[in-house]
Amino acid sequence: MGWEEESGSTVCPVARSLAVVGDRWTLLIMRELSMDVRRFDDIQAQLGASSYLLSTRLKRLEKDGVIERRLYSARPERYEYYATVKGTALDPILLMLRFWGMQYCADKQGEEPAVYLKYKRTGEVVDEHWQIPASEWPFSLTILEVTLSPRFEAEREKKRRNFRK
Amino acid sequence: MGWEEESGSTVCPVARSLAVVGDRWTLLIMRELSMDVRRFDDIQAQLGASSYLLSTRLKRLEKDGVIERRLYSARPERYEYYATVKGTALDPILLMLRFWGMQYCADKQGEEPAVYLKYKRTGEVVDEHWQIPASEWPFSLTILEVTLSPRFEAEREKKRRNFRK
Repeated sequence: MGWEEESGSTVCPVARSLAVVGDRWTLLIMRELSMDVRRFDDIQAQLGASSYLLSTRLKRLEKDGVIERRLYSARPERYEYYATVKGTALDPILLMLRFWGMQYCADKQGEEPAVYLKYKRTGEVVDEHWQIPASEWPFSLTILEVTLSPRFEAEREKKRRNFRK
Repeated sequence: MGWEEESGSTVCPVARSLAVVGDRWTLLIMRELSMDVRRFDDIQAQLGASSYLLSTRLKRLEKDGVIERRLYSARPERYEYYATVKGTALDPILLMLRFWGMQYCADKQGEEPAVYLKYKRTGEVVDEHWQIPASEWPFSLTILEVTLSPRFEAEREKKRRNFRK
C-alpha cells in the first residue's frame, strides 16, 4: 500500500491516511468524481494540473484502492474514474473541508455558496451547521442533492473553455 | 490569505481549504499541536521534515491564521506553537482521517490503535464508529482523553532519540 512507502510504516492512522490523500490534488480529484466528472480531460480542465501530475495521482489512487477505472471506449482506449468504497469513505472529509472553507476561507460574510447542498431525505439545506445524521453512517455524498451556484458554474465553464483552446 | 495565491481565487470552499491545509505536513503539524508538542525541534523530530520545510509550513500556517506563536524564551528567542480557533476547527478533519486510516490503512484486522481516545464526559471509547455528539459542535479534540499506545509511544521515543543524535 502507498502509505507504507511514504509514511515509513508509522502506526498513526492520521499519518497513514495523509500518505494516501494528503495533498490537495488528490482530494480535488475526489471532489470531481463526487460531481460525476469522470474523464481525464474533464478532470484536468477543472484542476489545471499537468497531464503528468494528474496521471501520476490517478495511478497512485488506483493502486491504493481509492478509485477504479472503467473502460468506456475501446478504440481509442478510454477510461472513466469512480470512487471505490474506500474512496467514498473520504466523503465526510470532503464535507468537513467544505464547512471549514465556508467558515474560515470565505471572501466575505454571507458569500453565496459554491454549491447548494440539500439533504435528499428531508430537503434540509446542508450548511456548515448541518450534521450528518447518525442513521446515515457510513456517510456518502450521494445522500445530498448538489446544485451548482451560477458563480461556480461560470467558473467551471470558463475552465472547460480555456482547456479546449 | 494563502488560499488566494494557490487556488486562483476559486469559489469552491473545498479547494480553498485544501490550498491552506492540503498537504500532509500541515495536518501532521496540527496533529502534533493537538498532542501538546509545541516546539520546533520536537515537531521536527516527529515529522522527519527538514528545518526549511517545517519553518516554511509554520510561517504559512501563521499567516493563514491557523496557528499562533507564543514566546517561551527570550534569550535565545524561542516560540511555542498553538492552534488558533481556525486551527482547532480542523479537529473534526483530523478525527475523520484517523477513522479512515483505521478502517482502510490498517496493517491487519484488529490492530492495536496508535492512540486510545476516550470521550471525557462519558468515558466512551472513541473508535471509528463513534460519532461527535450534536452538543459538542464546534468539535475540538480537547473533549477527548488521549492515551498513547505502547507501540506509538515507542515509535515516537525512537524518533526523539534519533533526532537528538
